[in-house]
Amino acid sequence: MTDLGASLRTFLDGRWAWVRDEVRETLGDPLFAPVYDISIDEHRARVLEQARRIATTRGPRLLFSKDAGGEQEVGAAITAFETQALGDLSLLVKGGVQWGLFGGAIQHLGTAEHHQRYLPDVMSLDLLGCFAMTETGHGSDVQSIRTVATYDEATQEIVVHTPDDDARKDYIGNAARDGRMAVVFAQLHSGGSSHGVHAILVPIRDDDGNPCPGVSIEDCGPKAGLNGVDNGRLAFNHVRVPRNALLDRYGSLAADGTYTSPIENESRRFFTMLGTLVQGRISVSGAAVSSSKVALAIATKYALARRQFKAPGSDDEVVILDFLQHQRRLLPALASTYALHFAQEELIAQAHDVLDSGVATTADDDLARRKLETLAAGIKATTTWHATHTIQTCREACGGAGYLAVNRLPQLKADTDVFTTFEGDNTVLLQLVAKTLLTRYQADFGDLDTIGTMRFVAEQVMETVIERTSARSIVQRLLDAVPGHDEDTDLRDRGYQLAMFEWRERHVLDGLARRLRKGITEGGDAFEVFNAAQDHVLTAARAHIDRVVLEAFVNAIDRCEDPELAELLNLLCDLHALSHLERDRAWFLEHSRLTPARSKAITAAVNTLCGELRPHAELLVEAFGIPDIVLGAPIALGDEAARQAAKRREPSATVQA
Amino acid sequence: MTDLGASLRTFLDGRWAWVRDEVRETLGDPLFAPVYDISIDEHRARVLEQARRIATTRGPRLLFSKDAGGEQEVGAAITAFETQALGDLSLLVKGGVQWGLFGGAIQHLGTAEHHQRYLPDVMSLDLLGCFAMTETGHGSDVQSIRTVATYDEATQEIVVHTPDDDARKDYIGNAARDGRMAVVFAQLHSGGSSHGVHAILVPIRDDDGNPCPGVSIEDCGPKAGLNGVDNGRLAFNHVRVPRNALLDRYGSLAADGTYTSPIENESRRFFTMLGTLVQGRISVSGAAVSSSKVALAIATKYALARRQFKAPGSDDEVVILDFLQHQRRLLPALASTYALHFAQEELIAQAHDVLDSGVATTADDDLARRKLETLAAGIKATTTWHATHTIQTCREACGGAGYLAVNRLPQLKADTDVFTTFEGDNTVLLQLVAKTLLTRYQADFGDLDTIGTMRFVAEQVMETVIERTSARSIVQRLLDAVPGHDEDTDLRDRGYQLAMFEWRERHVLDGLARRLRKGITEGGDAFEVFNAAQDHVLTAARAHIDRVVLEAFVNAIDRCEDPELAELLNLLCDLHALSHLERDRAWFLEHSRLTPARSKAITAAVNTLCGELRPHAELLVEAFGIPDIVLGAPIALGDEAARQAAKRREPSATVQA
Repeated sequence: MTDLGASLRTFLDGRWAWVRDEVRETLGDPLFAPVYDISIDEHRARVLEQARRIATTRGPRLLFSKDAGGEQEVGAAITAFETQALGDLSLLVKGGVQWGLFGGAIQHLGTAEHHQRYLPDVMSLDLLGCFAMTETGHGSDVQSIRTVATYDEATQEIVVHTPDDDARKDYIGNAARDGRMAVVFAQLHSGGSSHGVHAILVPIRDDDGNPCPGVSIEDCGPKAGLNGVDNGRLAFNHVRVPRNALLDRYGSLAADGTYTSPIENESRRFFTMLGTLVQGRISVSGAAVSSSKVALAIATKYALARRQFKAPGSDDEVVILDFLQHQRRLLPALASTYALHFAQEELIAQAHDVLDSGVATTADDDLARRKLETLAAGIKATTTWHATHTIQTCREACGGAGYLAVNRLPQLKADTDVFTTFEGDNTVLLQLVAKTLLTRYQADFGDLDTIGTMRFVAEQVMETVIERTSARSIVQRLLDAVPGHDEDTDLRDRGYQLAMFEWRERHVLDGLARRLRKGITEGGDAFEVFNAAQDHVLTAARAHIDRVVLEAFVNAIDRCEDPELAELLNLLCDLHALSHLERDRAWFLEHSRLTPARSKAITAAVNTLCGELRPHAELLVEAFGIPDIVLGAPIALGDEAARQAAKRREPSATVQA
Repeated sequence: MTDLGASLRTFLDGRWAWVRDEVRETLGDPLFAPVYDISIDEHRARVLEQARRIATTRGPRLLFSKDAGGEQEVGAAITAFETQALGDLSLLVKGGVQWGLFGGAIQHLGTAEHHQRYLPDVMSLDLLGCFAMTETGHGSDVQSIRTVATYDEATQEIVVHTPDDDARKDYIGNAARDGRMAVVFAQLHSGGSSHGVHAILVPIRDDDGNPCPGVSIEDCGPKAGLNGVDNGRLAFNHVRVPRNALLDRYGSLAADGTYTSPIENESRRFFTMLGTLVQGRISVSGAAVSSSKVALAIATKYALARRQFKAPGSDDEVVILDFLQHQRRLLPALASTYALHFAQEELIAQAHDVLDSGVATTADDDLARRKLETLAAGIKATTTWHATHTIQTCREACGGAGYLAVNRLPQLKADTDVFTTFEGDNTVLLQLVAKTLLTRYQADFGDLDTIGTMRFVAEQVMETVIERTSARSIVQRLLDAVPGHDEDTDLRDRGYQLAMFEWRERHVLDGLARRLRKGITEGGDAFEVFNAAQDHVLTAARAHIDRVVLEAFVNAIDRCEDPELAELLNLLCDLHALSHLERDRAWFLEHSRLTPARSKAITAAVNTLCGELRPHAELLVEAFGIPDIVLGAPIALGDEAARQAAKRREPSATVQA
């Protein structure tokens, strides 16, 4: 690797470089080589074996508090997860369910007693568990789940029950094969009154692996991908668990059934408990970025090796990355992957700062958590759609070779496809982002439903305020330096680009607020008015996140002390920003912020930037530091050894005359 | 089904309705139920068994000439194929390789002797075969393939040889398991001179299924999808076949090695031979349309049954298709699927007329074939990208349920993903379309390389002519009726929409021609000039095809005699046209053909149309006439019987306490 390449990789590895290196070393073992040719049963067994190996490393312990034997360092933990996503994503999701969701629920919703009783076994994988929240009938709308948990004072037990098929816990990882216990989310009742959604620990299998009495377990069967994860459906027929099975940090039951909670407001309590999901969203987002990196590394290396069509007057065929159209497929996606890497890095840092602070007690704590949740929701939607789009593009850019399982792209596509759905459906998450923006982080969590948002909007007449933290002073300096007239400004002027992103965000959000206010003032039905503006709502959320991502890129370049590296990052940032403006130029034209001539000039600038970045393509994907054994694809590795290694894993023997 | 629904279905079934019904009846057998939970070996065996059943139906015989026992009716044959694509796509591709490609090559490139010797066994499946064109190193650039076929006068044999790994025949369907013979494309040499690419019949396995001497066969292994098709790699080590193994309709060898051909020009000969691929492209295009229909039927039925989130002030949760955002995901894709259905119907009719006319002898024949090939290339690129996009959207719109294999969407996505690559990579096909447009169908096939195109463009100064056949008089009438000023025109005025599409096509193409001419005139390198304009080239091709597709929809409505049905189709056509203009509004704004206000009005009109079509959603997908057994997905069928049927096919037993 060149000096520039090494310097770039160090820069990308960032604050938790040590954990990235530890995970890369772990993944270098053949146990972690990607597989594609095994049955679901074998895949599940292999993933469990891999997870047991991971359990011996430091990664899982980083998630948990010291009172339970953990090494709590949230930023490092999520970075480890993100790096592990360079390998088999079934393993990643299995681990995410076990440590992030199941263990995370015990950590965040339970108390010290729960921590000490369960977390050591959770970390070591001696206790495998499930996170049973989603139901067949309710995914995004968790508040409406219908599993019930009724306290029986006579026996001091909680009775967990599934009223009908629609209330079964569905798509639950670890349920079909390995899980022994589940964190079950249910509507808690005691003393004849309802306390809303709570989490209860319910054993689902005995020591021999048989379902516990009253527990029905069904296998979800084959999925598009992630078939190394044993997703299943759980149903409970009046299953009794002791009172202390309630994870009672935010709500507890006395022996007589009296309910108490440190959070008075039921809706606020619910959203506080749900807030523990934020870590999962950030982790999935990181996995989406890592998967995009793997796909781009494969497609770029192939595009640098593959030749097709003779250039006129030459006997040599053309390297396909020299075709403009091929550059346009891969390089803007690569530039945006860099942008999202830096945005993800900021998100992790923010999570690291916020998540250790425990129960939000002050208004400032509340605000910090709300900002983190909003950012995580928006970034997760952006990175996962980016992964879906990028991996698809990479598959197509590799032609027939990209369709072969040996070249990894099919599995990457299939595994990541559900990222846009799980840990929060992207469309629902973007609506959440927009609602938070509309209420300027001021509404309580519980008011973020449509009615609450509309009420807040209707009462306000202020213009939108773009929130920018002090760390973003570089952004302000760049903005201040922009000349008055767009037409006089170089398209590559960073301040100009920032101003365009910021102007759009403000304009869309103001327009949306006015539109909703007008609809209500004119007597419209709140739901109808909001629904009719749903495309506008999503645009507002996207404009916000796009601005945040660009600023993260700008901040990263500002931190970079190597001038040669900064120059390269600036080219990437230009390509990211301008290809983005190109994609959304219709909006700017409609709002007269781009003239037709300038809009066309952006397309020309994107083409030019593709040409300028073309010589750096290999270095840019090398810097991701993907170990060969997980990169896997013969078309990416290119050498005979890799081909041979791949062949050894192939199921069907070569027949030869 | 309502009267309107029945009427719509009859209208969609069209000219070859009888063959659609025959295929639907065949597919109704449980043998054709979609599977997802079986090993590759089992899947391959099942698909072969299905193919043997298909061989007993009329479908395959429709492809072949009467001199060989066929019933030659090309339009019906392709319609049968398209209908069969409602079921397992592995079967479709297996059949496509056997009858369409292998049999088609013998039919179109061979002579009566070849027909009579082989075609009866091809139809009956007693002779399974491969179409060995693509090589590891050359896919899109067939003219550069490197397998050699050298005539040995001494023994009157042709010696077929693979010089190195890059020249192996790759991704070849039927090669890994079932094929006994292959049509091998190779550079033909005799008497010390080269005659270009020709097709030769080479046995690859003996009666016991072992590779023939000198033939190496390798399994391509697991793929993203289509795993019921046994793709493999073939290499030939000086394999000898008799002289009459040459498919010699377009070029034959005398015993002494003298080469003769009815087509003097080697390049023109090559493109004439390649022209036989057109049928495969049209078939894949039809399969893409059918797959889009299946995905939309599943997602729409789910969206009509699934409820989520309570509407304020109501106890009922909202049917998700009532959310604007969900309508915007599904309904424009549905409208465009209708548009592409009608475009595909016109393409099939045109193929039916052209493909039976044999060797092109007059300039008119030549032109007709060139138009067909251009149309097929463009429509294939459009329908296959549409399928990729639509199926992805449908998967996401079904959330977690869409990720389960039992609900068919994962397999649909994985199977169709390669459609954008095989039978011609879409990007390469669009370039072919643009080159034909630039040379106004006047250049010889062989001149369609970059240099030839550039030379032609440089010599011309005329403006573009939009070709419209007499059948399109309705389009002209609508265009003539448009008022002079856009702003005065209703967005739903069909003439206005047509004028917009046509104006864009002309403008893009003229601009491209000027740009290329200028580049050459100023002394630029032809390749560099063309490459720098590659995005412009693809835009030109797309603008052309988009106009053709819209006109096909207009023609279809013009044929419709049921006023109620015509009204519904008009709504769909509005949504197709306006959502398309919305997507490309940046271009119209850049070229001052849309004002900002009108551009925003288009978005509003799309939203309104979604609401107007919402009540018809179920009828619109019912009209596709997809048999329940192939629709398969429990989330689409909804009744307990379907769930039970699906469960019976599930591999993992339900465990229950």
